Amino acid sequence: MYTSVNDGDRFVISIDNHQELVSTLAAFCKDQGILAGKVDGIGAVNSATLRFLDPATKKYVDRTFDEQMEISSLVGNISEKDGKPYLHLHVNLGRRDYTVVGGHLLCCTINGACELTVTRLHCNLGRHFDEETGLNLYTL
Amino acid sequence: MYTSVNDGDRFVISIDNHQELVSTLAAFCKDQGILAGKVDGIGAVNSATLRFLDPATKKYVDRTFDEQMEISSLVGNISEKDGKPYLHLHVNLGRRDYTVVGGHLLCCTINGACELTVTRLHCNLGRHFDEETGLNLYTL
Amino acid sequence: MYTSVNDGDRFVISIDNHQELVSTLAAFCKDQGILAGKVDGIGAVNSATLRFLDPATKKYVDRTFDEQMEISSLVGNISEKDGKPYLHLHVNLGRRDYTVVGGHLLCCTINGACELTVTRLHCNLGRHFDEETGLNLYTL
Repeated sequence: MYTSVNDGDRFVISIDNHQELVSTLAAFCKDQGILAGKVDGIGAVNSATLRFLDPATKKYVDRTFDEQMEISSLVGNISEKDGKPYLHLHVNLGRRDYTVVGGHLLCCTINGACELTVTRLHCNLGRHFDEETGLNLYTL
Repeated sequence: MYTSVNDGDRFVISIDNHQELVSTLAAFCKDQGILAGKVDGIGAVNSATLRFLDPATKKYVDRTFDEQMEISSLVGNISEKDGKPYLHLHVNLGRRDYTVVGGHLLCCTINGACELTVTRLHCNLGRHFDEETGLNLYTL
Repeated sequence: MYTSVNDGDRFVISIDNHQELVSTLAAFCKDQGILAGKVDGIGAVNSATLRFLDPATKKYVDRTFDEQMEISSLVGNISEKDGKPYLHLHVNLGRRDYTVVGGHLLCCTINGACELTVTRLHCNLGRHFDEETGLNLYTL
């Protein structure tokens, strides 16, 4: 699924080709016992699903882009919910015509490379459901 | 305005809903005495003002996007100018149709979550006005 | 070409105006003996060449954007290939109309500021050519 190497609390992860990024990164965090951290990286995908939340209606709108795209940036964090790693990841995706789509990442399938850095943090990053926003916000 | 937790020099910050990001992050840096550092993160806004500088004319063009958008990435740094934290932040913003606008961030209002990581650096990052570019460049 | 300051393994780099980013960052890494690390940052350019790889054909398509743009994000890594620093950098670029183009960065010319952070990692990040993808993938 992935290979990784670390320098103390900093991990470099290469996700194998054709793997789904979010579940693979969650597996990595579980394997390493990481329940708090930050993540960033780059890569390429041939499918990605983004979620847009309209706060007015609290309705989620998901859209899948089935095309080859570069992950021009991935930025996110790792926290703990129900005792398990909880990933919150946003991406920008460069299309074939170089225009970019982006937002909250639900899932994506690697096609090419995926090179991430995770930094483990030694503090408690919890989550709780917030009625006002309809989001799982940080409990710090 | 915000909540935060830290692991040594690494801080995780959650900016409260409906707050302006740049001034809140500046307040956080002042509260913590951070005059050098880096910042990245994700979130959501319902208004953001971006600044484009045309180097040919040295004219600033500011544009405000009054709509719900994901902060698909925020990358920037903290330095010192006139004894105070000076923020230099760039963002990418994913719109309702998933297309992205981006550039130099002047200000934005959180609508939803805003989850940032600040790493304090123990070195001097100053600023000076540079005539050629019309910018406050690093003094390293 | 550049100025820099560091806090242990974290370096802040300001690339001089009118310099090409990728070769200047490679020179920095060579000067500092950095063969493993991560990099992120922001800046402005007046020319940038992006590369799109179509995995179906394994053909590279390069496109140069000759216009003033903000580097709304730069995320990437430093590894070792043939004993030298090997940079893998992705960018998002905010245009005059604030729309964003992005992807794999081949080269770009700074016009304004360019402020990067490099974190040196104390682990081996090698590269090998992978037949399936046509890419130089990590050897971890």
